[in-house]
Amino acid sequence: MSANSAANSVPHPTLIKVDPFIPADKQKGLHNRWHPDIPPIATVKPGQTFKIECVDWTGGQIGNNDCSDDVKNVDLTKVHNLSGPIAVEGTEPGDCLIVDILDVTPFEKMPWGFTGIFELENGGGLFAKEFRSRACKAIWDLNGVYASSRHIPGVRFAGVSHPGLIGTAPSPELLATWNKREGELIAAHADSVPPVAYPPEPRGAYVGQDLPKNVFEKIAKEGARTIPGREHGGNCDIKNLSKGSRCYFPVFVKGANLSVGDLHFSQGDGEMSFCGAIEMAGIITFSTSIIKGGVEKFGLKQPIFLPSPVDPMYSQKLVFEGLSVNINGDGKQFNMDASVAYKQAALNAIGYLQKLGYTREQAYLLLSAAPVESHVGAIVDSPNACVTLAVPTGIFDHDILPKPEGLTKKDFGQCAIRSDGVL
Amino acid sequence: MSANSAANSVPHPTLIKVDPFIPADKQKGLHNRWHPDIPPIATVKPGQTFKIECVDWTGGQIGNNDCSDDVKNVDLTKVHNLSGPIAVEGTEPGDCLIVDILDVTPFEKMPWGFTGIFELENGGGLFAKEFRSRACKAIWDLNGVYASSRHIPGVRFAGVSHPGLIGTAPSPELLATWNKREGELIAAHADSVPPVAYPPEPRGAYVGQDLPKNVFEKIAKEGARTIPGREHGGNCDIKNLSKGSRCYFPVFVKGANLSVGDLHFSQGDGEMSFCGAIEMAGIITFSTSIIKGGVEKFGLKQPIFLPSPVDPMYSQKLVFEGLSVNINGDGKQFNMDASVAYKQAALNAIGYLQKLGYTREQAYLLLSAAPVESHVGAIVDSPNACVTLAVPTGIFDHDILPKPEGLTKKDFGQCAIRSDGVL
Amino acid sequence: MSANSAANSVPHPTLIKVDPFIPADKQKGLHNRWHPDIPPIATVKPGQTFKIECVDWTGGQIGNNDCSDDVKNVDLTKVHNLSGPIAVEGTEPGDCLIVDILDVTPFEKMPWGFTGIFELENGGGLFAKEFRSRACKAIWDLNGVYASSRHIPGVRFAGVSHPGLIGTAPSPELLATWNKREGELIAAHADSVPPVAYPPEPRGAYVGQDLPKNVFEKIAKEGARTIPGREHGGNCDIKNLSKGSRCYFPVFVKGANLSVGDLHFSQGDGEMSFCGAIEMAGIITFSTSIIKGGVEKFGLKQPIFLPSPVDPMYSQKLVFEGLSVNINGDGKQFNMDASVAYKQAALNAIGYLQKLGYTREQAYLLLSAAPVESHVGAIVDSPNACVTLAVPTGIFDHDILPKPEGLTKKDFGQCAIRSDGVL
Amino acid sequence: MSANSAANSVPHPTLIKVDPFIPADKQKGLHNRWHPDIPPIATVKPGQTFKIECVDWTGGQIGNNDCSDDVKNVDLTKVHNLSGPIAVEGTEPGDCLIVDILDVTPFEKMPWGFTGIFELENGGGLFAKEFRSRACKAIWDLNGVYASSRHIPGVRFAGVSHPGLIGTAPSPELLATWNKREGELIAAHADSVPPVAYPPEPRGAYVGQDLPKNVFEKIAKEGARTIPGREHGGNCDIKNLSKGSRCYFPVFVKGANLSVGDLHFSQGDGEMSFCGAIEMAGIITFSTSIIKGGVEKFGLKQPIFLPSPVDPMYSQKLVFEGLSVNINGDGKQFNMDASVAYKQAALNAIGYLQKLGYTREQAYLLLSAAPVESHVGAIVDSPNACVTLAVPTGIFDHDILPKPEGLTKKDFGQCAIRSDGVL
Repeated sequence: MSANSAANSVPHPTLIKVDPFIPADKQKGLHNRWHPDIPPIATVKPGQTFKIECVDWTGGQIGNNDCSDDVKNVDLTKVHNLSGPIAVEGTEPGDCLIVDILDVTPFEKMPWGFTGIFELENGGGLFAKEFRSRACKAIWDLNGVYASSRHIPGVRFAGVSHPGLIGTAPSPELLATWNKREGELIAAHADSVPPVAYPPEPRGAYVGQDLPKNVFEKIAKEGARTIPGREHGGNCDIKNLSKGSRCYFPVFVKGANLSVGDLHFSQGDGEMSFCGAIEMAGIITFSTSIIKGGVEKFGLKQPIFLPSPVDPMYSQKLVFEGLSVNINGDGKQFNMDASVAYKQAALNAIGYLQKLGYTREQAYLLLSAAPVESHVGAIVDSPNACVTLAVPTGIFDHDILPKPEGLTKKDFGQCAIRSDGVL
Repeated sequence: MSANSAANSVPHPTLIKVDPFIPADKQKGLHNRWHPDIPPIATVKPGQTFKIECVDWTGGQIGNNDCSDDVKNVDLTKVHNLSGPIAVEGTEPGDCLIVDILDVTPFEKMPWGFTGIFELENGGGLFAKEFRSRACKAIWDLNGVYASSRHIPGVRFAGVSHPGLIGTAPSPELLATWNKREGELIAAHADSVPPVAYPPEPRGAYVGQDLPKNVFEKIAKEGARTIPGREHGGNCDIKNLSKGSRCYFPVFVKGANLSVGDLHFSQGDGEMSFCGAIEMAGIITFSTSIIKGGVEKFGLKQPIFLPSPVDPMYSQKLVFEGLSVNINGDGKQFNMDASVAYKQAALNAIGYLQKLGYTREQAYLLLSAAPVESHVGAIVDSPNACVTLAVPTGIFDHDILPKPEGLTKKDFGQCAIRSDGVL
Repeated sequence: MSANSAANSVPHPTLIKVDPFIPADKQKGLHNRWHPDIPPIATVKPGQTFKIECVDWTGGQIGNNDCSDDVKNVDLTKVHNLSGPIAVEGTEPGDCLIVDILDVTPFEKMPWGFTGIFELENGGGLFAKEFRSRACKAIWDLNGVYASSRHIPGVRFAGVSHPGLIGTAPSPELLATWNKREGELIAAHADSVPPVAYPPEPRGAYVGQDLPKNVFEKIAKEGARTIPGREHGGNCDIKNLSKGSRCYFPVFVKGANLSVGDLHFSQGDGEMSFCGAIEMAGIITFSTSIIKGGVEKFGLKQPIFLPSPVDPMYSQKLVFEGLSVNINGDGKQFNMDASVAYKQAALNAIGYLQKLGYTREQAYLLLSAAPVESHVGAIVDSPNACVTLAVPTGIFDHDILPKPEGLTKKDFGQCAIRSDGVL
Repeated sequence: MSANSAANSVPHPTLIKVDPFIPADKQKGLHNRWHPDIPPIATVKPGQTFKIECVDWTGGQIGNNDCSDDVKNVDLTKVHNLSGPIAVEGTEPGDCLIVDILDVTPFEKMPWGFTGIFELENGGGLFAKEFRSRACKAIWDLNGVYASSRHIPGVRFAGVSHPGLIGTAPSPELLATWNKREGELIAAHADSVPPVAYPPEPRGAYVGQDLPKNVFEKIAKEGARTIPGREHGGNCDIKNLSKGSRCYFPVFVKGANLSVGDLHFSQGDGEMSFCGAIEMAGIITFSTSIIKGGVEKFGLKQPIFLPSPVDPMYSQKLVFEGLSVNINGDGKQFNMDASVAYKQAALNAIGYLQKLGYTREQAYLLLSAAPVESHVGAIVDSPNACVTLAVPTGIFDHDILPKPEGLTKKDFGQCAIRSDGVL
């Protein structure tokens, strides 16, 4: 007889189970809007370790194949598909909810993820306008701690796996604040393509629970879209909020009502192409604790966190600089604009990767998905903000450093593109 | 007799010597404008190791004392005081100049540096308007690899020492581009306080060489101010372009004409308070090499670099998030603005440090000078850019982590302020 | 319909499946001796990603409970239980087998591991004689990337998960070499307790395949014990041969015949208490490739490897020194003996942890299991080798640094001990 | 007038000044034996930052040239030349002396160092017998944070600069203990070449102070040699006790009487060739503080320390394993001997470097001097201790990783050898 019997071995419970191969809006425990009236689907005690399964952020709209038509036609009214909410016993507004992100893994039956470039008119991305983006895609094979892609040969990297989206539920007042301020921005940029922000949209709204019709309709009508991060966390897409991190969330409703989704096997700082992480379905492991009155104690206006001790370490990097001057375009001078500076650093890096033989689309996808680091260098030297983008050289199986003889240009093919061949 | 005699020991030559205790405009080998007509003060061969001495960026205007009146009255027409230019034999426009930053140290006779908050009306800084800034100062004692300050007790950290400002000389065409684009920005924000940019300004212009009067006057009249970084490098204030880095500069004039100054013992990402690094006078050690035609080979639109293997490593950090919503102010929603997001993350960190007992001014100075890391988290989740600011916990001699019982507020006094006591 | 359907998602195959709750000698695909005649249980092609399940090294002899009697009575003739061998197509003696260790995880149904101190007379350990060891145990809860133990309160750390034991099969000649040289050592220390080495031992030998009786008997009679590492790899217990590593093995038999087991969730350098890692059952993910003639090409006398980019990073450490003088005992001077020096460093660390309130047994277990780093400082300063042992401070939830007022001694209880209470 | 005048700038005082070009035994403030009767040459207050200048450990016997005759003929009765002792006010036996190693730099006028292989009969080294060592030498150019050598082309690395030798003075009782135990070892190995240890030796003894003759003679007669590390610190040659470290020393005499020397620009774990670091003359910066009764409070039997946050970071390494079997020689099996295991790992690494084209002597010198990391893997798997040696790949300007086509063998010439050409 074996001493370590099943009797003394208690697996961590899985509170929400999903199937990544079934459309999200056919599954329990998912929702795709933020609203205080979405009831908790499960309740945990502080200190308990538990697991939550998540579909990928699109809810299974993107396939493991060599054509980007699914990206072209993605229905963004349905995103992000979140798992939850999870209530934590004893939590009240004004408390600080500590969430330990203990693990983030893909499903064993689905060892792959994807990175996409969305169409200018459907989703966009950082360079949607500059590149007049057409749908592209890279499929990544997930082999243990590593990812590699048949669509971007010559690279392999360890994942800094994290939830792109995690947050507590908003109070009615906070929700109203969001809708008001974002509505004003939308109104000020009414014709923008892609849009500057997304108002509540009943079409596509989903809550995977049996709710009274009027409750669901209220949620669908008022519920904040999940695209941006906000005071409660949300879609911050911070790559270093990774497995092993401890996060301190402000609590706005009784029970805190934590939701999570948009799992990323890896992502670069900035997430560049918007669907830029290695998007995956998978399993996240949590434990929680509460600090009563933590919002006041720590002056919490939004989450703070302690990053993980187990993120990938690539010490050698090639760093690109960017300033708030559009030197890759019309040369326009901006006023201390770090977003412009980030874009210039990114364009400089894309240009360099093209010299090595990657297509612009491959480079865009790669810098979105790989563990590149982008630092705000200086944001005080008027008029130029300076932002850097550091590409780890160790993720390549070939030497990318500048050489006296120049760079060797190889043929790396192309990523997955549309069936009509339009780029 | 000693075998290792002076005869076989050749010190690295010092090509420019300065005295940090003599006003900059009384010294040879310094200049404070960018212009192609500034002749090289010295010439080196590729491969040679050499040293350059630098005054601090203000040229000795700030003193080691406990009053910030010198900061209040600083004359910014005279900055930055750069050492150079150094010509590299055989370098031509279109080449890539490789510069190895081999060391950056303070003068032995001047083991201190300073961090300042400038007045709203004289220099400004990231929060000049929000804080309606009045002059403040922290003096840092430099003890080997560490800095500490009597004006900000309770912290000590290892320096990531670097030149805040390093660049090659512009061609006439490039200079004209700079002046044109910045002039247009200034014209569009004519009444801004502090100004959005700085046009050429003959007052205060200086070149520490014997030049024909008409040459000097041309330089003074046309020379670009040194405040911002630009395509040639310049005042990028990138903390990780530190000793041990290798930098690849585009070359715009024969000889490259490298200049350097604004040495920093340490700096946080962003440099926040503008005079935010630990500003110091000191010595920088270089060697150079040339890649012919490197601008074309690497697609160099601005410098790229390999960071140093010897930067400080503080693995535990407390990370603050910021979004492009002014949640620390009027709540206004911005459109994917990473500069706003950086500011919010910084204000969140300042608020936290105040809970620990640091004054707002101490916190502002500390986050400017210490090795804080600011990453662009995501810049695609409309409408909110997300930027993080990570404060290493190991630089404090007290525990700053969130605790169930809250934070312990200590009395850390105050930094150096104006003699009239105005904050 | 979901685009990412099961049809386009191929899980990595699991080539050996085991149940950690069933005794090892009732399961297929396991073996516990090294011998060239053990046939491969499965064959893979180079480039294929695959999984192997492993029981813990004792084969389920140790239970998740609060008593160490199972450790006291462990049957070491049955260890280590290895999964394999796996043949790699096309591999021949003299080749180099590249093994990518892609992942190492516990079973979902068994989220715990154990660390044991064995009895002086049954298993021993580094301080078996000094401590006159009696059985002790710590059970570790595995919560995602972290481990913590009810038997050693106040610590939590990220695992550097790895196979303690991995190797290719020996040729008959190599096996004969092992048995000869170890037999000579045993003969020279015939009465040693614990023994200095372990000769082939038919009792307890096991191969989980249907073998002709004479084949099995040959294996049982000649098969090398699995305790030590040898030229083929084997039980090297190198904590940094962790998930994410790439290892280059010499090949001695056709197919290479790779076997693996003794999975560790975490381990300190040295493994101190022998059963000193966090021993676990679990799943390892591999891929392989071949370099023909690699033994000659690289001069491979034993494996070499590239460590993982994802090992835990705890930058602050408290380092203890040890010399080849028994200063914790009789003061005897040894001659450049790094083993003695390691022991002194370890005893110095144990003494320090006792000042903090941990029992000697808890300290011994903790230093065995946590990611402590032990460096050979210097091994040339006659007569004293110097070895250091670095304890990461970040694994404690309390401050362990030396303080002017001394150390705070807390009550951390005791680890699991024998039912008769003997320590 | 400059605000930062000399008046407000106080350099850190230099308490001992030496000239690296003058023989050590002509200079004040040096000594080369450990003895309680050596009076302090200077006294400091706790909290004060101060500098100490040091000659190289041989006291200027080795020259910057291309011949190793000086190494062949080195007079080891004169080593190590230490600077000190420095008394710390208020320190008494039983206290803990905290020493902050704030900086370690070469002299500006002497930007080079050396690594030597000593003759079998004069100094030895780890492989003195195996290689039947003849004198060899590499001269290193120190260029800021980096070292490179004309005698070992193709490598450049950042220094982890540290004092090889630092310690407090022994009490008479401690000194007697040392001499007794080492004497017994010497007696037991009377004919060993090189010797196993070094007894007190009046010849060559030196104290650079005016002492009464009888005092000096007592010191010369009884004084412990400086070769090994001991309970007070001493010649531990721990590379990570580097600039930025904080060390806690036990105090044995009033004032503590700290001495330091044997500065290393860089060293690999183990120091392999004995004169294996990049030996240099230079300047060390300290500050100190006292914990009263610290020996008892912390159970200090020898120093403990906190390593520096600024050591070089090379994340990619090629790791060699070694076991306590002499597989590079006669195949003998040892009993859990980590020293043998270290040697095997080192020999495996040397063999690999030879495949790349380095000579055995170059490889031996390089592994001694570069920041290689040696970990004790496991020291419990009877009979084989396992030790690893990790060579950072980033220190080479060529690719050293195993490749399918094998390794590219280049011609790197040879290090400096004897004028008679004997190797």
